[in-house]
Amino acid sequence: MKVKKLLITGSVLLATFILASCGKSSSKGNYTTTGSSSGTYQGVIKGGRYRTSKARGVNTSQNNNQYNLKSFENGLTEVSKRVFSTKNYIFQEGQYLSSDTIESWLGRKSSSNPNGLNPKQGKKSNPNPEYIQQIEEQDYMTESGNSLKLKGMTIGIGINSEYRYQKKTDGPYYTKKISDSEVEQQGKIAAAKILKRLRQRKALKNIPIVIALYKQAPDDSLVGGTFFAYSNNKGKTVSSWTKLNYRNAVLPKASAETSENSGSSTDNDSFSNFKSQVQNFFPNLSGVTAQAQYHNGNLSGMHITITTQFYSQSEITSFTQYITRAAKRYLPHGIPIDIKIQSDSEMQAVVYRNSGSDNFQSHVFNSY
Amino acid sequence: MKVKKLLITGSVLLATFILASCGKSSSKGNYTTTGSSSGTYQGVIKGGRYRTSKARGVNTSQNNNQYNLKSFENGLTEVSKRVFSTKNYIFQEGQYLSSDTIESWLGRKSSSNPNGLNPKQGKKSNPNPEYIQQIEEQDYMTESGNSLKLKGMTIGIGINSEYRYQKKTDGPYYTKKISDSEVEQQGKIAAAKILKRLRQRKALKNIPIVIALYKQAPDDSLVGGTFFAYSNNKGKTVSSWTKLNYRNAVLPKASAETSENSGSSTDNDSFSNFKSQVQNFFPNLSGVTAQAQYHNGNLSGMHITITTQFYSQSEITSFTQYITRAAKRYLPHGIPIDIKIQSDSEMQAVVYRNSGSDNFQSHVFNSY
Repeated sequence: MKVKKLLITGSVLLATFILASCGKSSSKGNYTTTGSSSGTYQGVIKGGRYRTSKARGVNTSQNNNQYNLKSFENGLTEVSKRVFSTKNYIFQEGQYLSSDTIESWLGRKSSSNPNGLNPKQGKKSNPNPEYIQQIEEQDYMTESGNSLKLKGMTIGIGINSEYRYQKKTDGPYYTKKISDSEVEQQGKIAAAKILKRLRQRKALKNIPIVIALYKQAPDDSLVGGTFFAYSNNKGKTVSSWTKLNYRNAVLPKASAETSENSGSSTDNDSFSNFKSQVQNFFPNLSGVTAQAQYHNGNLSGMHITITTQFYSQSEITSFTQYITRAAKRYLPHGIPIDIKIQSDSEMQAVVYRNSGSDNFQSHVFNSY
Repeated sequence: MKVKKLLITGSVLLATFILASCGKSSSKGNYTTTGSSSGTYQGVIKGGRYRTSKARGVNTSQNNNQYNLKSFENGLTEVSKRVFSTKNYIFQEGQYLSSDTIESWLGRKSSSNPNGLNPKQGKKSNPNPEYIQQIEEQDYMTESGNSLKLKGMTIGIGINSEYRYQKKTDGPYYTKKISDSEVEQQGKIAAAKILKRLRQRKALKNIPIVIALYKQAPDDSLVGGTFFAYSNNKGKTVSSWTKLNYRNAVLPKASAETSENSGSSTDNDSFSNFKSQVQNFFPNLSGVTAQAQYHNGNLSGMHITITTQFYSQSEITSFTQYITRAAKRYLPHGIPIDIKIQSDSEMQAVVYRNSGSDNFQSHVFNSY
């Protein structure tokens, strides 16, 4: 019997070893992870299924501008990486704040909703803005024996920079601009309340809780908002804030645009140069646009979209080859860039350079 | 004066050298090329612009089923590679057959269109099928001093496997099935006529002309047709035909499906295994389908599409990590595969393995 048991244990160990050696994943008890590429977190799989957020889908419905959703979530993960290293921590979608909790926090404060983080409406003809637009929880785990233990949490708070309202139903829309200092102030007020509420939960009493503040872009923006501050909190009250200096821009810059929403003139020139080369190369090109992000004043990445009508697969292949060369020659070096090549709103090819790489890779979408 | 001239010549040479050393391109006179990745042709750029086909757009309008367009063009390039090596030849979109010429050849033969390759309509209640559906010319060039010389041509002929017609305007549609032997016979008849016409042109008298025959998939197929024969012709008449044994399939196989349009049972099992793992991993997965191609009975490549609703960027990132691992573990080894991960018909990420590689690469489409 002992021998048999040993054999079984051996097989289990071997199977675990095979599983563990396939990708960078590991299997502990009922948990496995998604595996990771360099610089990204592994995610938690429990019982073979991905562990989705307890508040899944809330933020999708909170954003009229979907750029605010994507940039909020990507940006939040980038903030987390400053505190929780991707090597030591495993990412888990938020398991402590439910849809109900987040929805009540995002509501206006009222007798039926005492936890609302937004102020009472006030006069309908001159309402108080709703400041807090979205909240997201991220959990950071480490492996401990056969299980995963919560070792940190990040909370993102998205604060509106504009408030749209109607004075009467079916009436025209009015917009109140919310100043940067008010965005910051309202974000910090909400952060203090949220931290206090989280610390009342037993599981969250002692872990580090990072809170990050995000300024939402207006609903008609072609690029999302940015994070502007975060705090890493060990205690019950918010400790000092660290400023973050990100700026997003749309390229090419419209000639009359203010500096607020456009790139630096050098980056804009380099992009314009790329754009005119590409437009000269291929007939009837309908669009070459980009989202650019600046960190501490330096260009830190670009997402480029090229839209045109292709008439054959060989045109797509040749165009992709050309773009791969033109990107290397004309676009700024040393930053991650991706270029979507599409036609009839369907992606035909992608050209991209990862962070830290010097070369562009490409893939053409074919069909049998 | 001589010194100045030398300096200018030197600068031009230097500029040419810089241009030539950037990518695998070369600059000869007024021509440059698109550069190439391994195993693909370089394309011709003339005066800074891509040289599009003289019959640009004709085949786009010829195909009700766009899968027939993509697979015809990709397949034709694959046939060309058997004769014209990607190392020695440069690809040029067809410059000898104009839109007018191809449109007249694709029409029915009549007194006003004597060159039509399709038979007269005959009785409206029982019309002769239109056999020839699309024709494509590809030119293969080599560098010769300062210019490019035409050194070969490939002509693809797409032959219908079904003919749809109405007996009267606004009446119901009828379908005539065209047998494989008739597809082959009609293709060979058209090939002989086309070769004869091409040889009458001065520039095409002596170059090798490859003709390849393609059987169109029905209009409702979820995968395109395949090439089934080609000939490499030095003279005025078609020399011997080489058979090609390709088959396309859609996976997973519907249980009642005949073998004609489905994968082998092993490949289907391996795909079903992958599919059920993925469906177990992620909630509400709405679709995992694939196009598979078989060459001489062996699986030679797959295009997989996964469609689901994602609720956050972290879900997309984790899902992509998981797919990268699951693809390596469950899908057949040693063949090129790509996996489109999409939501709301927008691509969110791609996972792919190139021909000859063992590892999958991935890219997630983000936004600022």
